[in-house]
Amino acid sequence: MPTLVLIRHGQSAWNLENRFTGWWDVDLTEQGAAEARAAGALLAAKGLDVDLTFTSFQTRAIKTLNLALEAMGRLWLPTEKHWRLNERHYGGLTGLDKAETAARHGEAQVKIWRRSFDVPPPPANAGGAYDLTDDRRYAGVPVPATESLKDTIARVLPYWEERIAPALTGGARVLISAHGNSLRALVKHLSHIADADITGLEIPTGQPIVYELDRALNAIDRYYLNER
Amino acid sequence: MPTLVLIRHGQSAWNLENRFTGWWDVDLTEQGAAEARAAGALLAAKGLDVDLTFTSFQTRAIKTLNLALEAMGRLWLPTEKHWRLNERHYGGLTGLDKAETAARHGEAQVKIWRRSFDVPPPPANAGGAYDLTDDRRYAGVPVPATESLKDTIARVLPYWEERIAPALTGGARVLISAHGNSLRALVKHLSHIADADITGLEIPTGQPIVYELDRALNAIDRYYLNER
Repeated sequence: MPTLVLIRHGQSAWNLENRFTGWWDVDLTEQGAAEARAAGALLAAKGLDVDLTFTSFQTRAIKTLNLALEAMGRLWLPTEKHWRLNERHYGGLTGLDKAETAARHGEAQVKIWRRSFDVPPPPANAGGAYDLTDDRRYAGVPVPATESLKDTIARVLPYWEERIAPALTGGARVLISAHGNSLRALVKHLSHIADADITGLEIPTGQPIVYELDRALNAIDRYYLNER
Repeated sequence: MPTLVLIRHGQSAWNLENRFTGWWDVDLTEQGAAEARAAGALLAAKGLDVDLTFTSFQTRAIKTLNLALEAMGRLWLPTEKHWRLNERHYGGLTGLDKAETAARHGEAQVKIWRRSFDVPPPPANAGGAYDLTDDRRYAGVPVPATESLKDTIARVLPYWEERIAPALTGGARVLISAHGNSLRALVKHLSHIADADITGLEIPTGQPIVYELDRALNAIDRYYLNER
C-alpha cells in the first residue's frame, strides 16, 4: 500500500524572529536541527521506512531532510529537490517582522494576507534586498513576485502529479520534507479540504504526518506518527 | 570547458583508530566534518562553482558532500548517490586495526594487500559482524566479498562512463565526493597512471582536486585547489 510521509522543516532563524520568510533562504536554528533529528529517530523507532525522498530548493527543508535521514540510517536514499516544493512566496512582506507589518498595514490587512485563500501580499520589490530573480538557484525558474495560498497550490500540484504520484503508484514509500504552505497544498489535495478551511490548518514543525493511500492514491488514513 | 572536482571524505572514526573500513559505514569525526566545510569554503572563495554532484552510498562521503555544499550555499544542487563510488571493499580485513592485522598476517602480507594492484585481501566472513549482504542499502547490488584496487577500478569506471562523463560532455561542472580508492580509479583513468604507480598515489582528505578537461574529456590540467 502506498505510504507518504510529510515533514515540515524545524524552526528557522526567522520563525524565531517572527519574520515573513517565504522563498528567502534562512537556516535552521539549533532547535530546528534537533526537531529534524527527532523526526528521523521517530520514523526509525516506529519502523516506518521509505524508498524515495523529495524536498524543496531551500536550505531549511533540505537540512531537515538530511538530518532526519541521518537519524534513520538512510542518508544513501535518493533525493530529488525542486523549487515547486518551496514555501509560499510572501512578496513584499519578505523580511518584515510581523509586528512591523501590522503597524504598517494594519492587523486586519495582515490577517487577510496570512489567512485568505486567494489574496496575495503586495509584490516583491524588484531589485530589493530580497529579490531572488538573479539567484543562480532559480535560473530558468518563473520566480513569483508574490503568491496567495491558491497560487502556491497551483505550482505544487503539477510536481506532485509528474514526479511524486507516479513514484507512489509504482510502489515506492515516499518522504517529503518541505514547508507549511507547500505541505498544505498536498494535504488539501489528498484530504479534500475546502478552500475556506485549508488556511486554518496548522502543520506542526518536525512532526511526521503519515498518509496511507490506496492504489489510486486516495487517502485511507492520515495521522501524526507520534500519536501511533 | 568541462571541469571536474574530486573531494576525498574527511577523517572518519576508523581512520582515527587505524582500522580497515572499506564498505563499512563509519561516520566522520568532528575533524572530518571540519575538513568538509573547509573544502566547500575553499571552492566558494575561489569562485569554483558546480552544477551536478555525485557521491557514494556511504555516510562519510555523503556528509562530506552535504557539508561542503552547505558551505558553498549550494545545498540545492542535484546529487546522485551510487554504490559504484564506494570505497574499496577490504574483505576479511574489514574492522581489523592495522597493527592487529600485521600481527596476524605479517607486515609483508599486509603491505601486499594494501599496495598491490591486483591482490585482494581474504574474502569477508559471510554472516560475520561486517557482512553487508543483508543491508537494505545494497538490495540488488552485487556486494563484493573482497576487492583488489583493480576490482574497485573495474566497478567504478562503468559508472563514470554511464553517468558522469556524459554530464561533463554536456557542459555540466561536476563535483564528486568519494573515497581514497574510488577516486584513485578516476585519477588513474583521467591521468593515465600505470598500474604499478597508482597504489602509491595518495589522495589527501578534504582537499579539492580540480581537473580541467577538453571536450573529449582528456585532462588538460590537474591541481589541488588550495595551491592555486
